[in-house]
Amino acid sequence: MKAQESYVIGIDYGTLSGRAVVVRVRDGAELASAVVEYPHAVVERSLPGSTDKLPPEWALQVPEDYRQVLKKAVPAAVAQAGIDPADVVGIGTDFTACTMVPTTADGTPLSELPQWAGEPHAYVKLWRHHAAQPQAERINELARSRGESWLPRYGGLISSEWEFAKGLEMLEEAPQVYAAMDHWVEAADWIVWQLTGSYVRNACTAGYKGIRQEGQYPDAAFLAALNPDFARFVVDKVEHPIGNLGDRAGGLSAEAAAWTGLPEGIPVAVGNVDAHVTAPAAKAVEPGQMVAIMGTSTCHVMSSRELREVPGMCGVVDGGIVPGLYGYEAGQSGVGDIFGWFIKNSLPAAYVDMAAKKGLGIHEYLTSLAERQNIGQHGLVALDWHSGNRSVLVDHELSGVVVGQTLATRPEDGYRALLEATAYGARVIVETFNAAGVPVTEFVVAGGLMKNPLLMQIYADVLNMPLSTIGSSQGPALGSAIHAAVAAGLYPDIRAASAAMGRLNRAVVQPIPENVAAYDALFAEYRLLHDYFGRGANEVMHRLKAIAREAHRDVQKVAAGVQG
Amino acid sequence: MKAQESYVIGIDYGTLSGRAVVVRVRDGAELASAVVEYPHAVVERSLPGSTDKLPPEWALQVPEDYRQVLKKAVPAAVAQAGIDPADVVGIGTDFTACTMVPTTADGTPLSELPQWAGEPHAYVKLWRHHAAQPQAERINELARSRGESWLPRYGGLISSEWEFAKGLEMLEEAPQVYAAMDHWVEAADWIVWQLTGSYVRNACTAGYKGIRQEGQYPDAAFLAALNPDFARFVVDKVEHPIGNLGDRAGGLSAEAAAWTGLPEGIPVAVGNVDAHVTAPAAKAVEPGQMVAIMGTSTCHVMSSRELREVPGMCGVVDGGIVPGLYGYEAGQSGVGDIFGWFIKNSLPAAYVDMAAKKGLGIHEYLTSLAERQNIGQHGLVALDWHSGNRSVLVDHELSGVVVGQTLATRPEDGYRALLEATAYGARVIVETFNAAGVPVTEFVVAGGLMKNPLLMQIYADVLNMPLSTIGSSQGPALGSAIHAAVAAGLYPDIRAASAAMGRLNRAVVQPIPENVAAYDALFAEYRLLHDYFGRGANEVMHRLKAIAREAHRDVQKVAAGVQG
Repeated sequence: MKAQESYVIGIDYGTLSGRAVVVRVRDGAELASAVVEYPHAVVERSLPGSTDKLPPEWALQVPEDYRQVLKKAVPAAVAQAGIDPADVVGIGTDFTACTMVPTTADGTPLSELPQWAGEPHAYVKLWRHHAAQPQAERINELARSRGESWLPRYGGLISSEWEFAKGLEMLEEAPQVYAAMDHWVEAADWIVWQLTGSYVRNACTAGYKGIRQEGQYPDAAFLAALNPDFARFVVDKVEHPIGNLGDRAGGLSAEAAAWTGLPEGIPVAVGNVDAHVTAPAAKAVEPGQMVAIMGTSTCHVMSSRELREVPGMCGVVDGGIVPGLYGYEAGQSGVGDIFGWFIKNSLPAAYVDMAAKKGLGIHEYLTSLAERQNIGQHGLVALDWHSGNRSVLVDHELSGVVVGQTLATRPEDGYRALLEATAYGARVIVETFNAAGVPVTEFVVAGGLMKNPLLMQIYADVLNMPLSTIGSSQGPALGSAIHAAVAAGLYPDIRAASAAMGRLNRAVVQPIPENVAAYDALFAEYRLLHDYFGRGANEVMHRLKAIAREAHRDVQKVAAGVQG
Repeated sequence: MKAQESYVIGIDYGTLSGRAVVVRVRDGAELASAVVEYPHAVVERSLPGSTDKLPPEWALQVPEDYRQVLKKAVPAAVAQAGIDPADVVGIGTDFTACTMVPTTADGTPLSELPQWAGEPHAYVKLWRHHAAQPQAERINELARSRGESWLPRYGGLISSEWEFAKGLEMLEEAPQVYAAMDHWVEAADWIVWQLTGSYVRNACTAGYKGIRQEGQYPDAAFLAALNPDFARFVVDKVEHPIGNLGDRAGGLSAEAAAWTGLPEGIPVAVGNVDAHVTAPAAKAVEPGQMVAIMGTSTCHVMSSRELREVPGMCGVVDGGIVPGLYGYEAGQSGVGDIFGWFIKNSLPAAYVDMAAKKGLGIHEYLTSLAERQNIGQHGLVALDWHSGNRSVLVDHELSGVVVGQTLATRPEDGYRALLEATAYGARVIVETFNAAGVPVTEFVVAGGLMKNPLLMQIYADVLNMPLSTIGSSQGPALGSAIHAAVAAGLYPDIRAASAAMGRLNRAVVQPIPENVAAYDALFAEYRLLHDYFGRGANEVMHRLKAIAREAHRDVQKVAAGVQG
């Protein structure tokens, strides 16, 4: 007779969909998964049922969409796995961040109350809601001028995406909504609240997005200096008992058990962030293992025993990835989306036709052309700042550059130069960590881009490091399942669970010595341009953005005049 | 009864074809024209009848192709005009330059002798034969180290395209051909030799391409220092009596009369260059009138009473455009060909489809999108150095740059940025002439690009000058016809003939004050990048080209290895 198996469910909440995966506790085998697309996707133009236009840079979501994942994806995955739901012993979740839900005292999103359903500020503000930029700038300026000790923990910059900027935006633009809000809740915690019926604030987002350092938030004097009505923001809206990663947040409520078809009372893990939860899935929770989750953008997470102020990192948080270690985060704002932009906006019809003729995807075809070249043959060097630079320059007003175009420059040349530019960007981050006393000893790739062998070889050669890869295509969900197993007490801690359930293919791509030397020369050019354009020698990018914004406003004025 | 009309023929020898135009002497009316494509076009891969590959950067032509224009285009144009050939009173020609023909003492091209027909060096070396770059570099280095007084007359750089570099190349690579050559003849003069039976060296190419200044060429000591066997290059191969522009070189020979069907003995004008001969066609031979012939590249010609050393000009030659004035030449190596490169290599299929749907050409469609933008709205600034920079940096190792790309950058943005970049490049040239004491008082546009209204408005706004345009689409041929009329004695000089026969639309595009202000800000960014990349602060472009060449050689080595 077979030994009784037990299973956990990992649920990964992405930007456009949620995915539930059934994972075997013993070895992390992924038995089945199911995806639910959010019915409202990202609300960017107007609220559901309204035609009123939202301002630019807004990005909202609808909380019921998240519940749909529990109601549909979880039962579908369990059914597909062919397991008895009674053998499911725990649930873990991860979410995009910083994605914020304004709620009442019992966790009801304000947008679900009839009186606020027509109020944009009552909805979930998705991570990429960027309308709080003015507030973020005030926060940074004030923090710098006051020499706030927490600022260097965030590479010197608080993002407009985070809790404080978005909260201040709400206070100043919709004070009545702000007043009605009892909790300003990370969606990562709100979904756990939905599962368990109780609110636990996770240590990860509290640290990275909520400016919580050593148990403290920015103080009332700081908040009051931003806006007198903001003085009690932390006390009234944010502060809440913290749960450590891997802890049990509570038991599955009767209501959520009914939604999911899972046993009532099974442990639900403390919430987490999609990037950070990938580290245990990749067996990469030891100090020095940097996990790069490479997709449209890249997020880098790494644990360390040391607390260091790494210039330009996104943040360092005690227990931010696993309890007991400092968790570091860095990021590249644009990676896969730059390649996608290039394909969409720069690829001639002849290439599309030829790819079709050869039965190849566009990226595949371009890669096949690009990989025939010797390093440097295209004569180009590019800066990968099409979405600004998150690490290490922390400047969203930077933009892309290509140097070296000639009449002989072909599309595959430009494409390859962009692949390389993102690798150079990664090298800058790795070198900055090394120099700051937090050495990167292993580079682990997760995410969709690990499927491109040319890109992987370029990264190995540029970094002069072997690349390891995660052994799962659904890393975050697997990571959440690992957290579930820990919360269920089936492993003593995340490390042990990761060792048993995570999957890492070690050093699968090796740097090639002559390529390393060739890329050293090109990286020197990147570094020179990086510092020239990125460190104040020529602020042309800032000026061009300012000019563009002004010119755009003129167009809108003209358009408005025409309409009026 | 109608007064007896007389006519002249202007023949313009371009890179791929020759055009004959029948022009009325009285008023310059263009009655008819005919074009003959050169049967061998540009010989770049292998000699006619051979499969031996030519080295890279080679560009040859076949002299008989030029005679075909006389034999076919001239009679066709005359027939189409419906005039009596007996009423044709003169012929003028212009040619690409520096295009060189090695000949025997009687003007027979060496390539037409059986013993040399298989020898690449015996053929016409077209202006864009660039294989003499190493020789050009040695010439420049030596001239700089010796402080040769003629070097500043050429903006500090002798081109690989010119007579001395190509001559030295022949000596060193094919000394037997060099020894067999009696004359090293500009094609501009060779065609006149074909028409008249006698060799007259024109003052224009002798000055601009032949390093002839104040009647002197580089001296024997200089030549010997380059290569002892080159010491007698001027005396043996180059030096020859000079004809001034507009002078009669000779009468139409019996043989050429038979080819063309024109009366034997009618005057044939001294040869000229396509760009320079356009000035009289545009009624722009007065000091300060800069004529920009805008096509794949742009050539700027302007006369002045003053002799000044304008930094980075192509050259200044006494009587180089009209006798009695100093003729200045400057150039932008890439203009229309950069736009063409963009269209070919960066335009998505969706744009091609949409243009077709709207019944527009690609350039037209892109222009229609680009012209809706406010200035600066695209957030880009580009450097127009895809073919290097001829003026004022005189550096063919420079390359293109785009700064400011984001994920929102569309193809029309990049396209417009390139149009603007070429306008900024023109402004640098104009400002350099102004600062050197040779002020540009009128900017006259000729060439195919004057048909793009957006481009024209951008130039007017960037230059903050009204633009005049030539009133002919075949400016060089009209200019040659004007020279013919002068050579025939029907006008006292080029100025008078230009006034009667040339056509200028004065100040047809006006700068718009708010656009001028907007472009001033963007030009400041261009200028900053221009000086940063172009004046030695960051030699990245040179290094990238060196790396690319090395990488390319590696590929060839590998390929050769595979074949071998």
